[in-house]
Amino acid sequence: MTKNKIRIILVEPAGALNVGSVARILKNMELSRLVLVNPQCEIRGQEARQMAVHGIDVLESAQVVETLPEALQGCQKAIATTGRTRHPTIPLEPPKQVLPWLLADQQEAALIFGREDSGLTNEELNYAQRCLTIPANPEYASLNLAQAVAVCAYELYQLSSPSSPPPPPEDKPLATLDELEGYFQHLETLLLKVGYLYPHTAPARMEKFRRLYKRTELTSEEVAMLRGILRQVNWAVGLMDNE
Amino acid sequence: MTKNKIRIILVEPAGALNVGSVARILKNMELSRLVLVNPQCEIRGQEARQMAVHGIDVLESAQVVETLPEALQGCQKAIATTGRTRHPTIPLEPPKQVLPWLLADQQEAALIFGREDSGLTNEELNYAQRCLTIPANPEYASLNLAQAVAVCAYELYQLSSPSSPPPPPEDKPLATLDELEGYFQHLETLLLKVGYLYPHTAPARMEKFRRLYKRTELTSEEVAMLRGILRQVNWAVGLMDNE
Repeated sequence: MTKNKIRIILVEPAGALNVGSVARILKNMELSRLVLVNPQCEIRGQEARQMAVHGIDVLESAQVVETLPEALQGCQKAIATTGRTRHPTIPLEPPKQVLPWLLADQQEAALIFGREDSGLTNEELNYAQRCLTIPANPEYASLNLAQAVAVCAYELYQLSSPSSPPPPPEDKPLATLDELEGYFQHLETLLLKVGYLYPHTAPARMEKFRRLYKRTELTSEEVAMLRGILRQVNWAVGLMDNE
Repeated sequence: MTKNKIRIILVEPAGALNVGSVARILKNMELSRLVLVNPQCEIRGQEARQMAVHGIDVLESAQVVETLPEALQGCQKAIATTGRTRHPTIPLEPPKQVLPWLLADQQEAALIFGREDSGLTNEELNYAQRCLTIPANPEYASLNLAQAVAVCAYELYQLSSPSSPPPPPEDKPLATLDELEGYFQHLETLLLKVGYLYPHTAPARMEKFRRLYKRTELTSEEVAMLRGILRQVNWAVGLMDNE
């Protein structure tokens, strides 16, 4: 899978909780390569491990290097991320626009995230060919590091997995139009019997019920259940009737 | 903007850091309404405030309630979230598929997140009309709470930004969840009375009716019509009863 060519680089992360959370979301999204540039916190201490949960293997196999160029060694493509909404010279692109490029043609690729407080320097931004920003509130656009990674990892997962939505667990056959019609007739008869409908108002009112049940796309099984109710009510009413 | 009709509900969150991080991402994504159901941690202490950063106003104005139904009061639409990848009876839908529905037609709407360790109970899932899961590694699909909220909030922001105008509002208001619940209770009572349900089978059977009517997106007017039938049947059965 192309995702395995992607490394996630954190430059000078200072929060152990963030590093642990990043490991977890990478595991969730089947990204396994984490590179930490000159981390400013304990990256395999209790806090990081606690947040990594079952992403602990990603945390433990994370590569630690001194500089961003080292982290990028062997990469053909890199995208830098920023929390800014505009930059004087570099075009900023949203995830959906720029991430497909990272996955294309199976190159070694990196997605780079900056420091929690100050992001990436201009020099660091320039190591990458393109620059990503997550669209957000112009009044507060800076996401927490682990949440920014989560959004990007989620988009990468979407892009690299087959886009078929999961089928509903029960694919039960829809009711036929005959079955529906049978139900509507049955309902009308009963509603007349119990005095909910009167002959002169029945067509207009039944029209509303027809619309309601038609848009539900009832299954055969459900029509049978609904008719079961009608039979039982009919029996209850009739029973009393004959007493 | 339609996003302002959306409340984010956390059921029994146990991590103050998570609650703070959620407040921050909501602020980032211009969602301002946070509701906490029976929180199990200090929600405005130092840890939460530290993670909220400039989302502190969302944290401070969060509403705290005792139960999920309280949190849902006045909502017409609700989506529950789960970390499971499949469920025996409830269809699970990815964010891109189900979130547009939440934003459509400007209804009061909720997105519900469960406990960090155990998610939402089946009963809680059933308060919502639809259920969301974030596509993820089948071997470790459970995201950190704050990261799951981040992914959903990000998608909501994408959907409600000017590039994708929501469809026009429908002419008739959808039933509130309170109204639906009232109908289900009324239906169950009557079905027990006429002998269609037995106390030991009622929950499983009612589950099927709930799903059927929830996917119909009933309007208030339709719920009133359906309850009219129940009242009339009750009267017919009771009338005979007393003769």
